[in-house]
This record gives sequence, structure tokens and C-alpha cells, in this order.
Amino acid sequence: MNPSQYQFRVRWGETDAAGIVYYPNFYKWMDEASHHFFHEIGFSFGHLFSEEKAGMPLLEALCKFTSPLMHEDEVCVRSAIISLKDKVFTIEHEFHRMGEVVASGYETRAWADFSNGKPKAVSIPNEIRKALATMQKKDDGTQENVREGML
Amino acid sequence: MNPSQYQFRVRWGETDAAGIVYYPNFYKWMDEASHHFFHEIGFSFGHLFSEEKAGMPLLEALCKFTSPLMHEDEVCVRSAIISLKDKVFTIEHEFHRMGEVVASGYETRAWADFSNGKPKAVSIPNEIRKALATMQKKDDGTQENVREGML
Amino acid sequence: MNPSQYQFRVRWGETDAAGIVYYPNFYKWMDEASHHFFHEIGFSFGHLFSEEKAGMPLLEALCKFTSPLMHEDEVCVRSAIISLKDKVFTIEHEFHRMGEVVASGYETRAWADFSNGKPKAVSIPNEIRKALATMQKKDDGTQENVREGML
Amino acid sequence: MNPSQYQFRVRWGETDAAGIVYYPNFYKWMDEASHHFFHEIGFSFGHLFSEEKAGMPLLEALCKFTSPLMHEDEVCVRSAIISLKDKVFTIEHEFHRMGEVVASGYETRAWADFSNGKPKAVSIPNEIRKALATMQKKDDGTQENVREGML
Repeated sequence: MNPSQYQFRVRWGETDAAGIVYYPNFYKWMDEASHHFFHEIGFSFGHLFSEEKAGMPLLEALCKFTSPLMHEDEVCVRSAIISLKDKVFTIEHEFHRMGEVVASGYETRAWADFSNGKPKAVSIPNEIRKALATMQKKDDGTQENVREGML
Repeated sequence: MNPSQYQFRVRWGETDAAGIVYYPNFYKWMDEASHHFFHEIGFSFGHLFSEEKAGMPLLEALCKFTSPLMHEDEVCVRSAIISLKDKVFTIEHEFHRMGEVVASGYETRAWADFSNGKPKAVSIPNEIRKALATMQKKDDGTQENVREGML
Repeated sequence: MNPSQYQFRVRWGETDAAGIVYYPNFYKWMDEASHHFFHEIGFSFGHLFSEEKAGMPLLEALCKFTSPLMHEDEVCVRSAIISLKDKVFTIEHEFHRMGEVVASGYETRAWADFSNGKPKAVSIPNEIRKALATMQKKDDGTQENVREGML
Repeated sequence: MNPSQYQFRVRWGETDAAGIVYYPNFYKWMDEASHHFFHEIGFSFGHLFSEEKAGMPLLEALCKFTSPLMHEDEVCVRSAIISLKDKVFTIEHEFHRMGEVVASGYETRAWADFSNGKPKAVSIPNEIRKALATMQKKDDGTQENVREGML
């Protein structure tokens, strides 16, 4: 299946005094790309949280930066599942600008029940698992260190 | 030498609708802790950038999350240098709340010349290198994958 | 002329622990709507700043909030010029959700020369003034207090 | 009584590509100054929200900008109550840098019950009202337009 694509243009407020993007914004964009990804496969983070008290808190996130982004750059984030376990999945994000990869990273998230306020890891529901599996990239082995059962 | 300590209390605007901290804020805090770290060893990011057109763009940043932070939690970030090469250094950050480690991560940064607008990696100046060396933690080998000479 | 329309969906990171949008985001959106507005009339903030050292710093911004926004709400911001003076203009922004006005505000901005680092108010260039005038709303008198020549 | 004072140093991530503070941060700081203000008079926003489902959503916020702030500027925000009605209060914030006022604004907030998810304006509790009254500035008449009973 084709990877999910999340597109945006770099906003003025996302730059800093060096004239390039302030780096924590890449993690905000990875989070937004993950929400977009769920939307594309037919689920809404917001609905899952408000109706089912289900969330996807982060266990780990990494991003590598190859080339700085500037104001008004057109960016496309391609996202795919690279690891899918009982309670934990990893989603990879590649940032493209005019065909060039400018950054790449991943988020490892737990499926969690928030009904008692604090998140508690639980098994990923079957219908979600099936949908995630359709967006799975061949695992190249680089994600073996995903931390299962951390919560 | 004792590690640099950067302290703050979680602000309302740093939470999200799940009632916990929105995760990209951890990277903002790692950036702030690095600025604080430089301030502690006698240098100012702002002065270096405005007077010498020197900056420290990110090559890579990772954070692992163990326990969610909530509004008004008191947090202390302990920072130390764990790798120091010709043009690149890695600074580790540990997030503590009431004695418990709630998250830990690192930033790998290049020393860069911004005098032509776009950053270009250059050797870390000697006086900076000496100061960074005083804040160096014994390298435990976990950072061997730091990407030297990427820029 | 029809007002400029800037559309977006409320992102997870824009909410806070009360489950509604953290209010400073409305000012970020007004800034983004102003950038979009300039883009619609054929100018780019980014290009003006990088090529001509021209910027539009804020003199004043107000927003009134009628109904809280929630995660995933679809929002449309309609923007129009409501005051146009020698060095200063005021742009009004109305936030709509499903036909309902949920917030409204304005930004008063100076035209400024940044070529010496710090902004200095200057006359709005003629081609910009003409383009802004085409997007002007009948002034209803509520903006008489715009502070001319403040810089 | 002396006004509440909220102090901070401008962070790198709060600047934009023009080298000055990105203006929506002033509203974030007003929000933080209001939280600090409540902390100073013995109440915690976080505790009020989590234990009593009470919050203080915004009805209106304005800020006027006199001089741009730069990275590492030391800022002190002085806050005082300038209007105190049954369900609504207005808190004024003055931003000082080295004795100079660089910006000033206000937030008009309703006291609201969040126990049904969406905020509903209710009377300010007596113990809060008494504490706010001790921090009240002589009203100079400029706030007569505070919108009572808007929610």
C-alpha cells in the first residue's frame, strides 16, 4: 500500500532567529503526520480518545536532520508502520522537500487506556491492528530495539 | 564536574487534551537545557550567533519517555557531554521528577558557521572544546553511532 | 472583493488539559491567516523579508472568544483590511466553525524596514497599498484607536 | 498590595526568522503570568481544574507592543486585577525589560465550571474573589467594555 502523505508549508512562527526551522517542530510534525495517518486509515485520534479513552502515548521518538528547512518550504511527510507488536507500534516518517529527503525519524507508541486518568498500555484492538498492518513497510531490522511492554 | 541542571515547572500550555504533556515539548526542553548548559560554562548561544555567526544545528535528537509529566510537575533536567568530536558533539539530558527519571534523551549537534545564511559545519573552537570537555560524562559506549561529518 | 479564507483543522497539540484549544494558538492562527492573506494578493512575507528586509511587526492584537474550539474542529478564518494608513494597517480575522463565528479579532501591523536589524516603521510601498486596498472592508468606525506612527 | 511579578529570559525557540520574538508568545506569557499570579495568592490552576473542575477560559485578550524583544532579554511581567465582576475578571499584564515597558495587555477571563466537559460561566467563589480583590489596581476606567455574562 502507498504510504500516507502529510503535506504542509513551513510557517513563519516555526522558524527561529537563525532563519531556519526550530528543531522541536519536526516532532510536532511527526505527531501531526501520525494523526493524519490514522485519519487516512479510517480512525480519528480525537474520537478514540473522547469516546473510548484510548490514546497512543510516546515511548520513544528520534529524528535525524540532513538539511535545514526554511520559511515557506513545501514539505511532504511519508509515514509507514515499521513495527507492530501486541501493545506497541513504530511509525516511520520521512520528510521530503522537492524530492529530497531533508529529515527522517520514527515514533514508538504504546496503545493505552486513559480511563483512569494515567495511561496504561493495553493490546492494540484487532480492527486497528488490521488497518495498521495494511500500511506496514518491510521491516529492515533497524527497529529491533523497540521497547515492548515498557508501560 | 557536576552536570548542569535546568529546572522548570510544567506549564498549562504544555499539556494536551489527554491531560499530560504534549511530547514535542520534551525536545523544546532539551534545547533549552542545552542553552542553559552553555550559559553555565560561560557562553551564550545568542551572543555566539549574533556576534560570531556560530550556531549548533541538530543532526539528531532522541528521547525515551518512561512516565508522563503533568501540569505543575517540578522537573530537573541534568545535562552532560557524552561525545566530543572535531565538528560534532552529543549532549545527554535526563529528566527528573522528585528523584525519578521520567525521560532521557540526547541531542547531537554540529558546530556551524552561519555567515553565508545556510549552516556549514566547522571545527569546534578550542575554548568551547575545553569548556565542553570539563562537562564530559564517561562515555558508556551507547553513543558510538553518532554521525560524524554529516554536514 | 471576497475576503481571504484560511482553513485548517484543530491539531491535537493545540489543545490543553481542559480539552479545548489553548488560547494563544488563536494569535498564531491570526498570524498564519495574515501570511495567507498576503499570499492570496500576490506577495510572500518570506520573500519580502529575505529579499527586501521588509516585515510587518505587530503594534497591537486583540481576540474575543465566543465558543471554545475542540480537537479536529474544522475552522475557516476570514480576513479583511479594516484600516489602511501611511505606515500602519489593521487586518480583521473572523473564525468560523460550521457557519458559526467562534472568535474574532484584529492585528494592527506597521510596515517596517529590518535592514539595520531592529524594525523601523516606513511608508507602505505603493504596490502593496494598492493590493491591500482591494481587500478593504467598509470601516465601521470601531478601529479609530489604531495607533499611527507608534514606532 | 504589590503586583505579582513573573520573570523569565527570552528563549531561542521564542524568536522567529526576523530575529525578534514571534508575537503569539506574548499571549503565552500572559497566560503563564496569570497562572503565576494565582500561585502567588495561594491557588493552583491545576488543582482547581483537576479537583474542582473549575477553569478560567478567555473571553478576550489584547496586547500592545512598544519595542521588540530579543533572545536572552530578561523580562518581568507585572500583573494586577483591573476589573472584578460576578463571573468575570480582567487581569492586566505589563512587560518590563530593564525598567522599560516593552508591551502591555490584559486578559478578560470567565470563571467556569468544566464538569460537563464544555465550560459554563459561574460566579467566582468567595475565597477566590477575596484573594483577587487584594491584588486589585485602581480601575482607571479603560476597562469599562469588559463583556459581562458573555458565556
